[in-house]
Amino acid sequence: MSVTPSRQIVYQIFPERFAIGRGLTGKEKLSQAAYQRPGNILKADWQARPAEDDAELKQCGQVFYGGDLQGITERLDYIQESGFNTLYFTPIFDAPSNHKYDAMDFFRIDPMFGDEAALKRLIAELDKRGMGLILDAVLNHVNYQHPWFLAAKRGEQPYRDFFTFDKAGNHLCWWGHPYLAELNLDNPELQSILFAGERNFLSHYLEMGITGWRFDTAQDLGMKTAERIRQSIHRRFPHAQLLGELMSYAGGWVNGRGYTGMMNYYFREAMLAWLAGDIAHQQANAAMREYYDGYGHEGSLNSWLMLGSHDTMRLRTAIPDVRLRQLAVAAQFTLPGIPLVYYGDENGMEGGNDPDCRRPMVWDEAQWERPMRDFIQTLVGIREANAALQNGKLMMLGEKQTGNALIYLRYTDVPGQLALVVLNLGDAPLRELVFIPYPHLYNSVPLRNQLAPGNEIKMGGGCIWVEAPPKGVAIYTPFEPHAHFRFYKERNLVV
Amino acid sequence: MSVTPSRQIVYQIFPERFAIGRGLTGKEKLSQAAYQRPGNILKADWQARPAEDDAELKQCGQVFYGGDLQGITERLDYIQESGFNTLYFTPIFDAPSNHKYDAMDFFRIDPMFGDEAALKRLIAELDKRGMGLILDAVLNHVNYQHPWFLAAKRGEQPYRDFFTFDKAGNHLCWWGHPYLAELNLDNPELQSILFAGERNFLSHYLEMGITGWRFDTAQDLGMKTAERIRQSIHRRFPHAQLLGELMSYAGGWVNGRGYTGMMNYYFREAMLAWLAGDIAHQQANAAMREYYDGYGHEGSLNSWLMLGSHDTMRLRTAIPDVRLRQLAVAAQFTLPGIPLVYYGDENGMEGGNDPDCRRPMVWDEAQWERPMRDFIQTLVGIREANAALQNGKLMMLGEKQTGNALIYLRYTDVPGQLALVVLNLGDAPLRELVFIPYPHLYNSVPLRNQLAPGNEIKMGGGCIWVEAPPKGVAIYTPFEPHAHFRFYKERNLVV
Repeated sequence: MSVTPSRQIVYQIFPERFAIGRGLTGKEKLSQAAYQRPGNILKADWQARPAEDDAELKQCGQVFYGGDLQGITERLDYIQESGFNTLYFTPIFDAPSNHKYDAMDFFRIDPMFGDEAALKRLIAELDKRGMGLILDAVLNHVNYQHPWFLAAKRGEQPYRDFFTFDKAGNHLCWWGHPYLAELNLDNPELQSILFAGERNFLSHYLEMGITGWRFDTAQDLGMKTAERIRQSIHRRFPHAQLLGELMSYAGGWVNGRGYTGMMNYYFREAMLAWLAGDIAHQQANAAMREYYDGYGHEGSLNSWLMLGSHDTMRLRTAIPDVRLRQLAVAAQFTLPGIPLVYYGDENGMEGGNDPDCRRPMVWDEAQWERPMRDFIQTLVGIREANAALQNGKLMMLGEKQTGNALIYLRYTDVPGQLALVVLNLGDAPLRELVFIPYPHLYNSVPLRNQLAPGNEIKMGGGCIWVEAPPKGVAIYTPFEPHAHFRFYKERNLVV
Repeated sequence: MSVTPSRQIVYQIFPERFAIGRGLTGKEKLSQAAYQRPGNILKADWQARPAEDDAELKQCGQVFYGGDLQGITERLDYIQESGFNTLYFTPIFDAPSNHKYDAMDFFRIDPMFGDEAALKRLIAELDKRGMGLILDAVLNHVNYQHPWFLAAKRGEQPYRDFFTFDKAGNHLCWWGHPYLAELNLDNPELQSILFAGERNFLSHYLEMGITGWRFDTAQDLGMKTAERIRQSIHRRFPHAQLLGELMSYAGGWVNGRGYTGMMNYYFREAMLAWLAGDIAHQQANAAMREYYDGYGHEGSLNSWLMLGSHDTMRLRTAIPDVRLRQLAVAAQFTLPGIPLVYYGDENGMEGGNDPDCRRPMVWDEAQWERPMRDFIQTLVGIREANAALQNGKLMMLGEKQTGNALIYLRYTDVPGQLALVVLNLGDAPLRELVFIPYPHLYNSVPLRNQLAPGNEIKMGGGCIWVEAPPKGVAIYTPFEPHAHFRFYKERNLVV
């Protein structure tokens, strides 16, 4: 039984690059038949990097190290100890590339990664641990060698209508790449195969026990497709998460009828731009308010807050200073949404833009950046103990302040169930008076910084002097200071 | 007949410290039986201050000067001339302390202050003048010597259930002070006595003719209690004001079902923090918008805008510069809400935090700070002549400006019934172009500063260059400049 979205902490894995199972060496694994294909570059040394000047290599994703599902299954202790309870895998279905965004068959696990039995073993192991799994659905396009496309080119129905050809015989293809043929998602027979029919792609794996789907290029699928998918899938799997990838602002895309949540790249871009000094704190605070307002409370809570992915420069490479990265991670764990950490970022793995951000997982602990993983584990604990950080509404406060900080309140409908978060980007300690238009922070209520328990502050009349260390974080929560007296009385809860 | 809330100008009195009636000297008054209690410190000299280093004195409120209801009645001319038309008294019911927040009997006027006849004489005198009176209800806790609590400790019903005891016999008590035993307001028999029964505390004095009640520690009473009180009291006294004390942001507490208004400490804190330089004008403007949005239009109009009380440092001590204090007072008389002045502040009385802010009223006119009382009288006149200042909606404008100023528009539904207020905290004259998204400030409408009639400005296309003196105030209102022409035609009024 996987955890509900608001309690999820997601770990994103690029399966080709995480771990090889069954104790096989790279050489042994890569000698398997699945890898023997012209043009493939096989890296028997897990630590060896691809030649960065090889242009073909960068484009085609034909460099292989041998990671697989069994390797992930064997590393669940590590993942769970790190604080994660939900996995997200980039595609695992039959495709020639290392990334598998060019599917040949949606109903077959790529033999490089294993088979359905391996996936079922993994799901069973996750179930035991109360962990969930999100898989990646690439419905917009398929490999130009996909049997459907080959048949379409031959003019065979229904496959011809699975795609879109012009009079000259050119087919619509993703970003103009001919080898990624775009599917015609308005075609009912295709819809039937993908998500609407008796035995369809999405349901097949949901039946197997996965938690939900991440949908590649949500803007290409469109809202209409998302709504059709949800209508069909939620009939049988009412709790299935359906997350859209939109590398932009996604207000309006989580409207209660289509995607249940989005990849919140707007959060990532704003956070990184602020840390890099590209935008001032006013705009950074505003951006967080904007995503929350635009995605809505539920839409925000169900969206992924990520700071990096297989499509971006790695967090450490973008932000080398670990203190700044900790500000970003603290935001990820305290703003409304589901924290998602890209494999290895918890140990400060480095990597530039795609494909460099897809380096094999570093398992040599000597190379790990300890403070980051420790900090994530601390944040997981704070978040788990605080319903406001999981489910609370958001009130951004830093926009009207002068300090270079993100400041915000998370609060539920239960008076006093809240957290006041301060992320100080300044080089000096922050001490600032903040007015908080929230009706249950009564005068004299004390708050304690969960990250530095000696740091206590006390409410004035609707305002409070908050503090945070240089380039540092404070997460304040209220406590009851008096014996035989409660600031928070039950009768203050009005529903 | 007292005035409606939007026309009230309230004068808060701490009765022990305002005036002794019947021409008695302090010595004569303090020789009365009511004052003869062990530990009491009797100050026959009205001007003598308590020894500030006497810790017991500060805690126990056992220093007495002899002020009483008759003394107030005899000073009504002064109060009315100063511009006030409504009084608010801190508690006047039987209690050993000077502040009476530790009641022994809700149905008995403290003999130090007089008796029911004295209260009735005062009310009759107020009635003649068209003035109102708000009394202070302390429902959360009583003195640990209160007969109810003594009976409760003996285990007698129904009194045992009027309080909350744990298994060890400890009772809930306010802020952990054992001598202030918290009442169990969920107990129906207690509710009956306080506000719900045939003859109850609140109704008893409303029948006598008071205008309404101020409720101590509204957050401890809780919203539920407030709703029960209103439901019961408004049945017989539909216009009774029920004001909650909440020394913090009170959005949500005036929801149309419980308190009719709140003590608006959020306004006070924001104003003083801005004047002190603790927050920038952006946050100060935002705070005013926040209280107006959060308390709602009606809730704001029915709440008290105060700059000091018996619980805070006096205004002059907090803000010595009279020009800055005048900015604050101008805000008090022009923002949505009921202006409330703490006795003596109109003459610039000084005093630190409680108990120093409760010094006896200074009646020696030589010690009065004339500019403040004059300014208040001027503001009363401007407010009385302007419906927008009494009832108008609020549009904050200063948040997006660069000048260190509060700038806002008050406006009613009648086109042109408005006031444009500028409070300039800067050391230089303010001249700033302000865009005003209000549809009835037509191009070329002239406005005149009510505080400096020579200062006229004229609307541009939706914007206007406003002016205000250094650390000074402007209150602009439009006027008709043309013979045989009206900018404001009746046909522009859309209802």
